[in-house]
Amino acid sequence: MNFTIRVATKNDMGDVLSLIKELAVFEKEPDAVEISTQDLINHGFESDPMFLCHVAICKDKIVGMSLGYRRYSTWKGPTMHLEDLIVTKDYRSKGIGKALLSNFIKVSSSHAVKRIEWAVLNWNKDAIKFYESNGAKVFDDWFVTQMDERAIEIFLKKNNENI
Amino acid sequence: MNFTIRVATKNDMGDVLSLIKELAVFEKEPDAVEISTQDLINHGFESDPMFLCHVAICKDKIVGMSLGYRRYSTWKGPTMHLEDLIVTKDYRSKGIGKALLSNFIKVSSSHAVKRIEWAVLNWNKDAIKFYESNGAKVFDDWFVTQMDERAIEIFLKKNNENI
Repeated sequence: MNFTIRVATKNDMGDVLSLIKELAVFEKEPDAVEISTQDLINHGFESDPMFLCHVAICKDKIVGMSLGYRRYSTWKGPTMHLEDLIVTKDYRSKGIGKALLSNFIKVSSSHAVKRIEWAVLNWNKDAIKFYESNGAKVFDDWFVTQMDERAIEIFLKKNNENI
Repeated sequence: MNFTIRVATKNDMGDVLSLIKELAVFEKEPDAVEISTQDLINHGFESDPMFLCHVAICKDKIVGMSLGYRRYSTWKGPTMHLEDLIVTKDYRSKGIGKALLSNFIKVSSSHAVKRIEWAVLNWNKDAIKFYESNGAKVFDDWFVTQMDERAIEIFLKKNNENI
């Protein structure tokens, strides 16, 4: 299977969004994607880009992508977060995911980060096996915690007088 | 208990590091903190700061801190990550943690983020209760995954010829 990996451009964001939606369906949250192609263009290609995206191309078609950004550990220092690593269904198990991961690790390493981190769903055994076989450590003792827009709004309304 | 919260300065980083080390002991990883005061100054106060830090002051002493940074969700858009929320032992249960959290939520909201996120250890029941009582949702289906510096080095050595 011949494919190449390159930095994504604004014009790729429509295809990148399709991959994001494909992953959301796989992760059993088909309605969770609220972002648009224009949002991705605005957020990723403005003067202070919020993420770095690479795409995998096969026969002139985008078949996979990686998307990540800088984070910070108060124990180690600068780190990189891999938000998404996606290969479209028909192109899996052909080495494209490994190549996208390799590329992300290489790019992160060139930024001298102390760690690369990401999250994986606990039932996604194939992904866990893939990441562990490449030297990643999977931790089961941390819970991801979130406040969404609605929770933030309720919190602020409730606590406004006390802040 | 009278206390104030303000944006941290370079001069606070020594005290902030002490709080980071206190949390590492509590989280049973006393030797995990590799960062120095100078690192925190370099990373947080350069032209492109890697984090935003606030401190809680009581009787002219730093007794707590919050530290966070921007992240990005490919489902929702810009988010904020709360990396640390720490109140030193003798000053807990006096409303300082809640005030630091409130301040972080307020600052995040002013940046129009779609979500605030963080991680909590699954055995830290008090923290989970505190976050949930303030409207956060705690997820038990995501595993945190990490490659440290050594794993990155081994991966690159092993895969260099194939990338």
